This record gives sequence, structure tokens and C-alpha cells, in this order.
Amino acid sequence: MNNNFRLLVISTSTIHGSSFLTYIKNDLVDFIQTDELIFVPYARPSGISYDEYTANVQKALKDKGIRVKGLHTFSDQKDAIKKAKAIFIGGGNTFLLLKTLYELDLVSEIKSAVASGLRYVGTSAGSNLTGLTIGTTNDMPIVYPPSFEALQFLPFNLNPHYLDPDPNSTHKGETRETRIQEFHQFNSQAVLGLREGSWLHVEHGQIELKGVLSARLFQQGKDPIELNPGQLQF
Amino acid sequence: MNNNFRLLVISTSTIHGSSFLTYIKNDLVDFIQTDELIFVPYARPSGISYDEYTANVQKALKDKGIRVKGLHTFSDQKDAIKKAKAIFIGGGNTFLLLKTLYELDLVSEIKSAVASGLRYVGTSAGSNLTGLTIGTTNDMPIVYPPSFEALQFLPFNLNPHYLDPDPNSTHKGETRETRIQEFHQFNSQAVLGLREGSWLHVEHGQIELKGVLSARLFQQGKDPIELNPGQLQF
Repeated sequence: MNNNFRLLVISTSTIHGSSFLTYIKNDLVDFIQTDELIFVPYARPSGISYDEYTANVQKALKDKGIRVKGLHTFSDQKDAIKKAKAIFIGGGNTFLLLKTLYELDLVSEIKSAVASGLRYVGTSAGSNLTGLTIGTTNDMPIVYPPSFEALQFLPFNLNPHYLDPDPNSTHKGETRETRIQEFHQFNSQAVLGLREGSWLHVEHGQIELKGVLSARLFQQGKDPIELNPGQLQF
Repeated sequence: MNNNFRLLVISTSTIHGSSFLTYIKNDLVDFIQTDELIFVPYARPSGISYDEYTANVQKALKDKGIRVKGLHTFSDQKDAIKKAKAIFIGGGNTFLLLKTLYELDLVSEIKSAVASGLRYVGTSAGSNLTGLTIGTTNDMPIVYPPSFEALQFLPFNLNPHYLDPDPNSTHKGETRETRIQEFHQFNSQAVLGLREGSWLHVEHGQIELKGVLSARLFQQGKDPIELNPGQLQF
């Protein structure tokens, strides 16, 4: 993993009983070390517009004095990414997000900017993209992206909103764990299940699991294990 | 819709408190009108092998005198489909199933055989394929198919294992309804949410909803509606 990577890889923007970004706001502001943040709204949760989604982030970070600009408002988006100090890719639909980044030819631009030290914040779909592929997203494939290859900052895949099997469920759809085990029939990379309220802080070549919950690590051919908050080894 | 289509589009192979195929077995046997069934095991639930999966179906249908052969055991699979009277495509991972059918060049073969009267039974992933695209599957995208276009027998999309929102949930992942509404931001076809225990019987140009539960119909730009068992209009 590149030592220049500075990433905040957040499972969810919102936790139960709290409003959008509230629980993570202080950590996000500490992490970005700037008062100018570029927001990438392409994942469009519930199909809201880029402007609406960006306004939600502006509102959530206003009391911290952060000026948020939507990437879609720049006439030259590649130039905006080059000049940015921090970007935040919000959650929504992972397929739509990745397809849009490929269509706008921004995948390699973001990769090279982050490799040069651009600070990257992702929530949910935006966190999925920090892994090797989007092959472990929970989202519905509402559009067809040209590839499932993601930004590949981390040497594994993410599963945000990781959900433990419900022992009382009568539903016969697959559990999250079953789905990830199916993934490992065809893919060798590890998958980190990040529960809601957890996030990864990546800096100086180190990956730290933050929040109070453990994360669940799935490796091909092995039993899954629980990783406690603190520094992770990969 | 082609009047020759004979389809049994089943939400799930297994319902709570019952073993594999038990609740649907009589209807399946009545529908296929043959004692020779070709089973398509490519969706590999939980990654089980083609042989294991086929053996499960053989075992489940043995007491009905149905001889089940796995499509993978034929040296000429296209010829096997041409000569078959009934095929059954089992559930598992929809991405894997569709990718495998494209790789084996069986998509057009199955389409033309069903258009000529081949009886088609699908459960879960096998039911997803009867719709226009797999864009409303619940499955994890563990492999990348060359297209999301499905077999397109029905003029809409399916969502098997349809699950109503849980009013007590504290989880912040999207509900099924939210996901389907996101789908409708980018796709115009209707989506039929088939609850576990429901199935469609298609014959003589008619679509009948079977089982005791209603199904939920999502149409672009409209509020979802509940459809009661009985004949459906599309």
C-alpha cells in the first residue's frame, strides 16, 4: 500500500438515532485538515439530485466552517481534483457511482491525486470504491458499469453496512456472510465487513480500525475472524 | 408476450420451516408434464458444485418419479436444450448464473427453445432471468457478466425474495423498496416484487400470481401497488 494514502473509509454516513454525518463529523473535520472540501455526489442515494445531495453535506458541515463544493459544479472536474486538498465521495448506489466516474474519465484522475496525497473521505458506496473491486457491495445493480474494478487503494475489498446474520430470521434470502463466502469461490482477495459506526483511518502506511465495534475479516479458505479497533495488519 | 411461453417463476426454492422444494413440488410436477427434467445448476448457491446441486434436486423430486439430469453433464448442451421438454434453472448467484450462460453461449439457445414451447421453471436467480434485466437482483456482484440483459420472457423485471421494510430496523442500509425506487431513476420497466411462497404461472399468454400472498408492483413514477393472487394484467 502506498505510504501517501490518506483515507477515511466510513461504513455509513448516518447511524441509528442520529442525523446525517453527525457521529463522524469531528473525525472527518480533523482528518481533512482544510476548510475546503470537494464533494462527489454521483452515487445519488434514493435518486436525489447532485445539487440536493451536495446541499445536505454543506448543511451538515456548516457549523464546522467547512466550505463544500460539488464536483459536478466545476467546468473542469479533472482540474478541480488536481487542485483539491480533500474530496469526499458520498454513499448511495455503488454501480451508479463507479459507472459515472468511468464515464467522466475520473477514475485514473482520482487514483493519481490520492497517490500524491489528496485526502479521501468515503462513506458507504464511496468506501466500497477504496477496495479492489465493487464485487462485495450490497447495492442493487441498477446500471451496468464498464468494469467492477474500483480505485484499489486498499489491498482488499470492503463490505460497508456489514450486518450479522439474524438468528431469528425466517427469510430465505442469503445472509451477508453467505454472500461473501460465495464471493470467495471466485475471488481471492480478503473482504473486510465494516459494521455501521466503524471506519478505517489510513495514513503513513497504517490502517487503523476506529469506532467501538469490531470488524469481520473474511479470507478465502479460512474461517472469518473478528478484528478489534486499533491498527490492522494486511 | 409470446403465447408459447410456459413458465413457472418461483420466488424461492425453500420456505421457512420446510425443506428444499417441498412446498412447490406438486405444482412443479404438474407444470412440467414430463418425467424428464434438465436442471441448470450454474448459480451455485453457497458455491456448491454442479453435481451436488443437481443431486439435491434429484433427491427432492425422486418420490415424484422425476428423472433429473444436470445440464453440465451433457457433452452437447445446446442439443440437450433443443431436445428437452422442461428445464429448471435453480437459484444461487444471479451474476454467476447469467455470466455462465453467456460464456457457454446458451442464452439465445434457451430463449429460442422457450419460444418454441420448452417448459421453463426458475427459482430465485433462475426467476430473475425471466425478466428484462438482472438489474433488480438482490445478489452480490461476485463476478462480472458481459451484460445485465436477461432472457426477457416477461415484459418487466423480477425481484424475488421480496422483503417488506422492517419498521423496527435500526440498520441504515437501503430497504428493498428504496433500492427499486433507485432502479426507476434509470430504468423504465416495471418491477414485480415476489414474496417468498409466491410464484407466477405463465401459459397461453396469461400471467397468474399463485400462492396466498400478494405481490408488490413498482412502476416508474407511480406509487407501488399490491397485486392479489390471480390473473395479472401487463
